[in-house]
Amino acid sequence: MGLVVQKYGGSSVADAEGIKRVAKRIVEAKKNGHQVVVVVSAMGDTTDELIDLAEQVSPIPTGREFDMLLTAGERISMALLAMAIKNLGHEALSFTGSQAGVITDAVHNKARIIDVTPGRIRDALELGAVAIVAGFQGVSQKSKDITTLGRGGSDTTAVALAAALDAEVCEIYTDVDGVFTADPRVVKKARKINEIPYEDMLELAASGSKVLHLRCVEYARRYNIPIHVRSSFSGHQGTWVRNRPEAGEGEEGMEQAIISGVAHDTSEAKVTVVGVPDKPGEAAAIFRTISDAEINIDMVVQNVSAASTGLTDISFTLPKTDGHRAMEALTKSKSLIGFDSLRYDDQIAKISLIGAGMRTNPGVTATFFEALSNAGVNIELISTSEIRISVVTRADDVKDAVVAVHSAFGLDSDSDEAVVYGGTGR
Amino acid sequence: MGLVVQKYGGSSVADAEGIKRVAKRIVEAKKNGHQVVVVVSAMGDTTDELIDLAEQVSPIPTGREFDMLLTAGERISMALLAMAIKNLGHEALSFTGSQAGVITDAVHNKARIIDVTPGRIRDALELGAVAIVAGFQGVSQKSKDITTLGRGGSDTTAVALAAALDAEVCEIYTDVDGVFTADPRVVKKARKINEIPYEDMLELAASGSKVLHLRCVEYARRYNIPIHVRSSFSGHQGTWVRNRPEAGEGEEGMEQAIISGVAHDTSEAKVTVVGVPDKPGEAAAIFRTISDAEINIDMVVQNVSAASTGLTDISFTLPKTDGHRAMEALTKSKSLIGFDSLRYDDQIAKISLIGAGMRTNPGVTATFFEALSNAGVNIELISTSEIRISVVTRADDVKDAVVAVHSAFGLDSDSDEAVVYGGTGR
Repeated sequence: MGLVVQKYGGSSVADAEGIKRVAKRIVEAKKNGHQVVVVVSAMGDTTDELIDLAEQVSPIPTGREFDMLLTAGERISMALLAMAIKNLGHEALSFTGSQAGVITDAVHNKARIIDVTPGRIRDALELGAVAIVAGFQGVSQKSKDITTLGRGGSDTTAVALAAALDAEVCEIYTDVDGVFTADPRVVKKARKINEIPYEDMLELAASGSKVLHLRCVEYARRYNIPIHVRSSFSGHQGTWVRNRPEAGEGEEGMEQAIISGVAHDTSEAKVTVVGVPDKPGEAAAIFRTISDAEINIDMVVQNVSAASTGLTDISFTLPKTDGHRAMEALTKSKSLIGFDSLRYDDQIAKISLIGAGMRTNPGVTATFFEALSNAGVNIELISTSEIRISVVTRADDVKDAVVAVHSAFGLDSDSDEAVVYGGTGR
Repeated sequence: MGLVVQKYGGSSVADAEGIKRVAKRIVEAKKNGHQVVVVVSAMGDTTDELIDLAEQVSPIPTGREFDMLLTAGERISMALLAMAIKNLGHEALSFTGSQAGVITDAVHNKARIIDVTPGRIRDALELGAVAIVAGFQGVSQKSKDITTLGRGGSDTTAVALAAALDAEVCEIYTDVDGVFTADPRVVKKARKINEIPYEDMLELAASGSKVLHLRCVEYARRYNIPIHVRSSFSGHQGTWVRNRPEAGEGEEGMEQAIISGVAHDTSEAKVTVVGVPDKPGEAAAIFRTISDAEINIDMVVQNVSAASTGLTDISFTLPKTDGHRAMEALTKSKSLIGFDSLRYDDQIAKISLIGAGMRTNPGVTATFFEALSNAGVNIELISTSEIRISVVTRADDVKDAVVAVHSAFGLDSDSDEAVVYGGTGR
C-alpha cells in the first residue's frame, strides 16, 4: 500500500462534526495500510468572514497582510483535524504551507508554486503519523513572507504534494459525488463521469466547472498524478482524472463516450475594443496592457477587418471582478494603442462542450449549434479548441442552452446511450 | 525620539472599530517621531472560541496542535491592524512570533522565551514601517514547532521585544486606566497608582492583580525596561512600573506611600498533605512530585510537628485548574512519600497586602490582622515576604476582607492621605 494525499474542502470541515467525520475517514485509510497526507482548507465560511473583517478596517486590503490574515483559516482547521485524529488514537502532526515546504514566488494573493521540499512531511510519515498540511498557502522564496495561492489553491497544494511525495493518488474530497456531465443544479439529468482524461478535465475546469480548479489539473497532468474526485459524505467511487488508457487496454476506455460534458460560466464579462487599426502589433499592445494589470483573460475573438476602413474589433472575456481594472487600464492607454471606443458587457454566459476528437468530427459542431438554435439561444462569440467548443450568449439564456446541448449529445441520464461520433462508436 | 513598544490586549482590538481606533493611536506615536513596534493579542473572544472548537473535536487537545490552533488568533488581529495602519497612509508590516525571532523552549502551551532575534523587525523599522508582532507566540529552537507562551504571553512578548530592541518604554494598553490599589470592581474607592517599583508590581501580579502578568514584570525588571500601563480608550497617563527613584531624586518618589495596594485571588485551591513524617527529604519528595507534573505552586506553609507523633502537615496553594492533577500525582506517590491523607479545598481566597519596607514595620502586620478581625474574617494560612503579607480565607469573605484592608491602610480615594509607616512619612 502506498502513499495517498487526501484533500478536504471547506464544506467537508465546516464544523466540529465535519472535522470528526473527516478524521474517521482519514483513520480508515491509515488502517488500510496507507501512508496518509491530508491537505485541508479553511472551515466553511471562515475565509469569507476574514475577508469581511479586512474590508471593515481597510477598503483596499494589501497583498502581504491579506495573505497573513487568510492563512489563519487553514491554521485553525488543520490543528483541529490533527486533534480529532489523535483523539481516535492515531498520531497526527499539522504543518503550515511554509513548514511543509511549499515554496512560491512573491506574488501575494495569487502566488505560484515554484518548488516543494516536504522534508518535514516525510519525517512525520516515517514516524507513522498522518501529516496534515494547510492548503492554499506557501512561503515566498525571496522575501520569506507568507503567500496564498489564490483560487483553487488547496487543490493545487494537494496535487503538488502528491507529485513531490510520489503519491499513488490524490483524492479530492468535496460535497458532490464527482465531476458531472453538466452542473446538476442546472441539468437535472446530468450524469456522474466515472473517468475523464486530463485534457478534457482541463477544458471543463477552464470552462466553468467548479469541481476541480484548472491549476490543479494542469499540475496533475504535468506530473501524471491520478486524481480521484469524490464525496466526503459517502463511500461512493467518484470521478477519476488520469491519462486516457491506451487503445485496447481495457473495456473502460473503449466504452467512454467521446463527449465528456457541458460546462457553463456566468462569472465572466465581455470587453470589446472597437475600431482597432488592423496592423501588426495592435493586438499585442492591447493584451500587454491587460497583462501589465495582472489580469487573466479567457476567450479572445477578432473578426476580419472591414476592407473599407481597415479597422477591426477585438473582443475578449475576463473575470467580472477584473472588469473595472481592465477598462481603466485600456482607457489610460487609448491614445497609445489607438482605438475608437470600449464596450463592457457583464450580462453574458459562456457555454462549452468538451470532448476528444471533436475537431475531426464536423457533426459535433453542427449538432451543438442546432441545439442552441432550437432552444432559441443567440450566439455572440464562438471559440474552439481541439477538444472544446465555447460560445458566449446572453446570461438569461444559460439554463436553456446547457439543457439543450446536454440532451442533444445524449448525456441525459435517461438516454439509452451517449451519442458517439467518430471511430470508437459502437 | 526613540523606540516605543506598544502592546494592545484583546479587548482593545475586539472588533473592526477597535482595530481602527488602535491604528490611529499607533499613527499618532509615529507622527510624534517614535519608531513603533506593536505587539497585539487575539481579537476579543477569539481565543475562547478556538478553545471551544478544540474541546468539541477532542477532550484532551494536545500541546503542539493546540498551539498551532491558538496562534491563528493573533495572526488575524495583526494582519488586520497592519491593514488599518496602511489605510491611514503609513507603512506597516506584520510578523508572527517566529518571524519576529521570538525563540522559545519546546514546552507547548507554556513555552519560555530563551532568545529574541528581531532582525526582521529592525529591517522593518529602518524602512520606516510600523512593525506589528503577534503576541503570545514563538518558535521552538529545537523542533521548529510553533509554541505559545501561556498566560500573560503577549505582555511578555512586548517586554522581551522592548529589551531586545533597547526600547525607551514598553506601553501596555488595556481596558482600565492603570494599576489600582485594589480591584475597582471589589473596592469602589480604589485609586490609580501613578508609579510603582518593579518589586511591588511583582508581588501585586503574583497575588492576583490581573492588570500585568508576573512573567512580564519579571522580564522588565531583569532588563530594566520601564512599563507604562494605560488605557487604549483614553489619553490619560496610566501607571509607570520602573525602578524606585534614588532618595532625593524628585518629589514623585518622596510622595509615594509605602503601601502599594491590596490584591486578591480566587483562582487557587488549597491542598493539605496530612501526617507527613518530620524528617529531611519529605517536603522535597512532595514538591518533586508536584514539579514533575509541571504544576506551579504558590504559597507553602508547614507548621512545627507535634512532638508526640513526629508528624506534620504541609499545605500549599495552586491554580484550581491544576488541582485534579496534583491530587492524582500525590495519590500515586502516597506510599513512596509516606503520608496519612490528602485534603483538597477550592473554596478559598487569597488576600495580599503589598508595599516596601513592610517587614521592618511591625505596625503594618498588626493593622492588617486587626482589619481582618474587625471584618469578621477568619485566617487559614499566612505567608509573608519582604514586601508582602498574604492570607488565605474562605472564598465568601474575599470582598469584606479586601475592602477592610484597603480602608485600614488609608488607600480609599476619599482618604486625606495614605497611611505611611516608616522613615519616609510626612
